[in-house]
Amino acid sequence: MSSTPSLASSLDLTTDVVSLTAALVDIESVSLAEQSIADAVEAALGALPHLQVLRRGNTVVARTELGRGERVVVAGHLDTVPVNDNLPSRLDADAGLLHGLGTCDMKGGDAVILRLAATVPEPVRDVTYVLYEGEEIDAEYNGLQHLSQSDPHLLEADFAILMEPSNAVVEAGCQGTLRVEVRTTGERAHSARSWRGVNAIHGAGEVLARLNAYEARRPVIDGLEYHEGLNAVFIRGGVAGNVLPDECVVEVNFRFAPDRSEAEAEQFVREFFEGFDVRLTDTAPGALPGLDRPAAKAFVEAVGGTVNPKFGWTDVARFTALGVPAVNFGPGDPMLAHKQEEFVPVAQVEHCERTLRAWLTEGGEA
Amino acid sequence: MSSTPSLASSLDLTTDVVSLTAALVDIESVSLAEQSIADAVEAALGALPHLQVLRRGNTVVARTELGRGERVVVAGHLDTVPVNDNLPSRLDADAGLLHGLGTCDMKGGDAVILRLAATVPEPVRDVTYVLYEGEEIDAEYNGLQHLSQSDPHLLEADFAILMEPSNAVVEAGCQGTLRVEVRTTGERAHSARSWRGVNAIHGAGEVLARLNAYEARRPVIDGLEYHEGLNAVFIRGGVAGNVLPDECVVEVNFRFAPDRSEAEAEQFVREFFEGFDVRLTDTAPGALPGLDRPAAKAFVEAVGGTVNPKFGWTDVARFTALGVPAVNFGPGDPMLAHKQEEFVPVAQVEHCERTLRAWLTEGGEA
Repeated sequence: MSSTPSLASSLDLTTDVVSLTAALVDIESVSLAEQSIADAVEAALGALPHLQVLRRGNTVVARTELGRGERVVVAGHLDTVPVNDNLPSRLDADAGLLHGLGTCDMKGGDAVILRLAATVPEPVRDVTYVLYEGEEIDAEYNGLQHLSQSDPHLLEADFAILMEPSNAVVEAGCQGTLRVEVRTTGERAHSARSWRGVNAIHGAGEVLARLNAYEARRPVIDGLEYHEGLNAVFIRGGVAGNVLPDECVVEVNFRFAPDRSEAEAEQFVREFFEGFDVRLTDTAPGALPGLDRPAAKAFVEAVGGTVNPKFGWTDVARFTALGVPAVNFGPGDPMLAHKQEEFVPVAQVEHCERTLRAWLTEGGEA
Repeated sequence: MSSTPSLASSLDLTTDVVSLTAALVDIESVSLAEQSIADAVEAALGALPHLQVLRRGNTVVARTELGRGERVVVAGHLDTVPVNDNLPSRLDADAGLLHGLGTCDMKGGDAVILRLAATVPEPVRDVTYVLYEGEEIDAEYNGLQHLSQSDPHLLEADFAILMEPSNAVVEAGCQGTLRVEVRTTGERAHSARSWRGVNAIHGAGEVLARLNAYEARRPVIDGLEYHEGLNAVFIRGGVAGNVLPDECVVEVNFRFAPDRSEAEAEQFVREFFEGFDVRLTDTAPGALPGLDRPAAKAFVEAVGGTVNPKFGWTDVARFTALGVPAVNFGPGDPMLAHKQEEFVPVAQVEHCERTLRAWLTEGGEA
């Protein structure tokens, strides 16, 4: 936590994108300990005369200022989940896989960002590169969130790409998420005289019956089919082994398609559990795909046309909240994120770099 | 925990039963700290020439050896639940209530035992008085249980009375108790892609549905109507707020009438939850009322005829396991046991003493 200079790792942005991924992986950067990697990123980008570089905490922003008619954001987080005996990186050249903590989530994407920043000095659309801290932990530490509050103008853009792992396929929009506690109450009684009480766990039977009868809505938005879900994620109740419990709490997570607002989603859940005590504990909005925007259309064409809906919640929703349509597009299988054995296919990292380079150089302004 | 002599509390067994109750209450005797009270009880009983007194741990046994044709046990535990700002005792003479920790559970009953032991030197049936330790905590500390293993001959009898609070009414037999864990399993998945998993909490809906459909059996045994009960006492499940849980456990307590054995009760529960993973965690047998035995009949007549079934499990079942029919008959409302505000009605303590004295002196041998 010292602010005195340390032996800084240095990054060579002229090397190939896979070597650069490995170099980034080998700078340990668990959440809340991103100073070394942010120092290295800031130093490498600061050496490039065509970029304006700023730093906020351990978040680094680099912008071209070419006066283009469009501006796009390309962003990735620098932090990882905790080390789990999976450092340093290890390249399996035969299989074409780079193994190690953060290879998938998401230093492969970060390497693509740094390569583009270094090697496309005159993109056809102005670019804001954002490499940020604190994504893998509570939202209060999220560097993108901080930036949206401290310097919202830095995130102004027509379109944003978040390089979260998506198997190098565009994932557009994201579903919202909301959590409620559905609570049943009863009256305690000794279980030997159970007719004197009311069992709150038994009362939760109806809550589970409704969940079992739930049918998921699958709306199509901008040509993408979303898939909602309503699930109990926790259940708890009980006082003692010989007592009828007077309270049972079912924690329910609703994942809702981005055509519903948070308020609409809450209303749906309250109506679904009508007659029960429903308390909202957590909510985050979805993000519409926004594929009708010119920059988005051009991007999808450059990538090759395949677009999937994003089911999970990601930071694309933060861009949507700022009025910036955003998609995920990064190397790596999202199902491998946070797994000890995570890896990234070399071909996907290279594909992402190639595709984005084409979009930033060959694609015309819309 | 020292075994060196301490300033012993002394008990005056010639005083009235209510003053003696107060004196017992004022010797603090939370479970595992019964030495002082056991010392006082042993000293008081040891001074009586008509009794043979033995001690095992902090359990005191006193027996008449008159060669009567029948022997009965009269038993009470000496320990209490923890102190909760409810010592020393306090007599409300106007209301006729003695307040304080253990007044109800069960030093009122203990005082009756000591008064009978001291003042009925030649009972018409031989009596074994047992004042024992460790009833309010795990069964491994139970003094009656210890005695049944170390000196089972000391508990041989035709009938036993446990002076547990029962509002000075005979409660006969007791229901058995059994606990099982009913477990559902599923497959974890991210809640944003819930169709890829199987939610184990939702699977528990059927367990709760069956519990809600349960109809309690109410068999009549020896003229007493029992009342079974099948209740969830705990439920737990959940991995994280964004994960479909792969396990949910419902802990179920079955209280069964004493016409079922433990094995039959287990079979009932396994059939009730057929199709689910059912694990037996805990079981204790019920006790039949045994009101057809001569000593029991004479006792019920002496008390005045009102007999209720005992729904909760008590140490009467330990006597039944030894082949000794047993009933509860003690002063105090069992619903007040373990409550901070516990008290005992003076009239009930006096009634119990009077009734038992009559049974031990006037009633002829059967």
